[in-house]
Amino acid sequence: MTAGAVERFRVIYRIFAGSAAEAIRRAHDIAIEQTVEIPADVVPEGFIADEIVGQVGRAEMGERGVFDVAISYSPDSVGSELSQLLNVIFGNSSIQQGIKAIGFEPGATIAERFAGPRFGIEGVRARANRPSGGLISPVIKPQGSSPDTLAEIAFRCVAGGADIIKDDHGLADQSMAPFEKRTEAIAGAVARANAEFGMSALHFANITGAPDQLVERAFFAKDAGAGGVLLMPGLLGFEIVDRLASDPEFDLPIMTHPSFTGPFVLSPDTGFSHAMMYGTLQRLAGSDISVFPNVGGRFGFSAEECGSIADACRDPAGFGMPIFPSPGGGMSVDRAADMVAMYGEDVVYLIGGSLLRHGDKIGEAVTAMRQAVDAAAGAETA
Amino acid sequence: MTAGAVERFRVIYRIFAGSAAEAIRRAHDIAIEQTVEIPADVVPEGFIADEIVGQVGRAEMGERGVFDVAISYSPDSVGSELSQLLNVIFGNSSIQQGIKAIGFEPGATIAERFAGPRFGIEGVRARANRPSGGLISPVIKPQGSSPDTLAEIAFRCVAGGADIIKDDHGLADQSMAPFEKRTEAIAGAVARANAEFGMSALHFANITGAPDQLVERAFFAKDAGAGGVLLMPGLLGFEIVDRLASDPEFDLPIMTHPSFTGPFVLSPDTGFSHAMMYGTLQRLAGSDISVFPNVGGRFGFSAEECGSIADACRDPAGFGMPIFPSPGGGMSVDRAADMVAMYGEDVVYLIGGSLLRHGDKIGEAVTAMRQAVDAAAGAETA
Repeated sequence: MTAGAVERFRVIYRIFAGSAAEAIRRAHDIAIEQTVEIPADVVPEGFIADEIVGQVGRAEMGERGVFDVAISYSPDSVGSELSQLLNVIFGNSSIQQGIKAIGFEPGATIAERFAGPRFGIEGVRARANRPSGGLISPVIKPQGSSPDTLAEIAFRCVAGGADIIKDDHGLADQSMAPFEKRTEAIAGAVARANAEFGMSALHFANITGAPDQLVERAFFAKDAGAGGVLLMPGLLGFEIVDRLASDPEFDLPIMTHPSFTGPFVLSPDTGFSHAMMYGTLQRLAGSDISVFPNVGGRFGFSAEECGSIADACRDPAGFGMPIFPSPGGGMSVDRAADMVAMYGEDVVYLIGGSLLRHGDKIGEAVTAMRQAVDAAAGAETA
Repeated sequence: MTAGAVERFRVIYRIFAGSAAEAIRRAHDIAIEQTVEIPADVVPEGFIADEIVGQVGRAEMGERGVFDVAISYSPDSVGSELSQLLNVIFGNSSIQQGIKAIGFEPGATIAERFAGPRFGIEGVRARANRPSGGLISPVIKPQGSSPDTLAEIAFRCVAGGADIIKDDHGLADQSMAPFEKRTEAIAGAVARANAEFGMSALHFANITGAPDQLVERAFFAKDAGAGGVLLMPGLLGFEIVDRLASDPEFDLPIMTHPSFTGPFVLSPDTGFSHAMMYGTLQRLAGSDISVFPNVGGRFGFSAEECGSIADACRDPAGFGMPIFPSPGGGMSVDRAADMVAMYGEDVVYLIGGSLLRHGDKIGEAVTAMRQAVDAAAGAETA
């Protein structure tokens, strides 16, 4: 038993309840549900009752039946696995109506046990040789294209000044472009374009597959020359992010994609806050760049929600080092000034399918976006 | 290109829209979003436009702004990875308001590419030597206990007539009961009790950890004598279920647990229907027993929602073979008659923390549950 040697971590739950008394009662239920999951009267005395069961702490009343209650848990309840940490944070209680997890305070022990981001904003900037200004990241697509077609798009985008070449998250291991061929083709094209044009663009290869294939494929991408990997924690679980971020041999930045995670944030009174899902949890897992749907695009996130995500990604007091927020959807030259005003400098701008409208001139469209972002930031343009 | 050789699969989306025209427009947006994710006017002609892009099919108007629209996709868009199948079914569109995925028709090609459940109801019954009647599954807990304490509870439960000994989903790899020691202790106790009392109880070991540890740990559990594994697809991803279900060397039944999946079903107009999340998707992944929160317990699922889950688990026309629904929460001798009336015979009844109230007499409480279920079913009691 290591009780006493560990510092507890805290989760802040927003509880929707008719009264403060009801909120506190529900908080005590959560403290049990997330740990021992047995009736309070049969909890064994001693270590389990004193340490393992969650402890209800400070409560703040909001408006109209909203109460933010902190519950602390022992790292002994977790061990050192990210999936079990998430299980304690919001496993079964995620199935309860009227509870939203909105905050996480790791404490010293959890901060020691989990690596967090390996690169963060500064590390990714160093690898991409972009010391200041927003990073431009065209997305390579569509699925159904051959590796050569995808590689040619990537080459032109690097020529145009892209910092990051991101695989579309729908490029998996389909027969039209199997993982290995696709990755070799795109990473190879990015390397050639970097050499030819004096660039340092990073190709982020999308990694999918069975659990015991994921690490292998990530290393395949690295060996093929990829400068990072794209992972979808909603589909693959968060563990793969932590696994790669904490592997010194791997040593590549990680971008996480929000596919399949929408239901966690779309309801006002269940799931996670936007900031916690796309900021806090991504940093906890070890992502360096967190992709999320941008305001004004095809998705319904508000400017306030997007701003809260960017803040959580970059908060100096957050878990590990600050990471890049990466808004995607509806990004264009016309909106560059608004986007720079909203997100500032430390941001990776995804540019998606609309780029394809430029055909062979796709590189020029990337250049135009680079210039628009730099102009908006008042920076010198190249 | 394998176009023509494949049969398309269909997803039914419930779209909340002001008019049929708006619903159809949104369906066309989904068909693009889930596949090429580029504006319609830049979709390459030929194979990509004709096969890869989703095709909007039949639409049925429900009441008050609810439209159920079928969209078909090509298996070429998927390949043979479950994560990519889920990505096409509801990856990015899960982040849109007003869309709920409620149905899935695999078609011949997807049915060939994915194994589905290896055991199903009949296979689990054969392994547990329980040819008829509901299966009784006490849950071994609480976390914080030593392997010996957990093993003793398991031993007594088998003595009392348990069919399945399920690890609590919060038993991971904590220092109080590390994965290997815990699994050896509980599986060993179940084996001894089976031998002593002439039982065939199956221990389902909870498998957690990094992606490249999961398969290894599942085989460790098998070698230690476990009769099945418990997996949490919400935390680990669905791929691990498919990976183990389709591995002939593994050859143990799989129980899936709903931790971290609540937000997928709690909102009326986003995520999945209860039946799709806890029935259809579990079968698609290869689960043999799908755990879900029971009506009347600590969670808010209605009798109708629970019934729809049980139906989706057992529907003979569903993916692969019918599987066991496993309602948990609030199960007791007093409710046995209601539960049998509601769920019938092909069900695994989870009995949780309330069992611990019986202390050393926990086996007798399991026996009482066995007898109550059998009496309610009008079956002979042992």
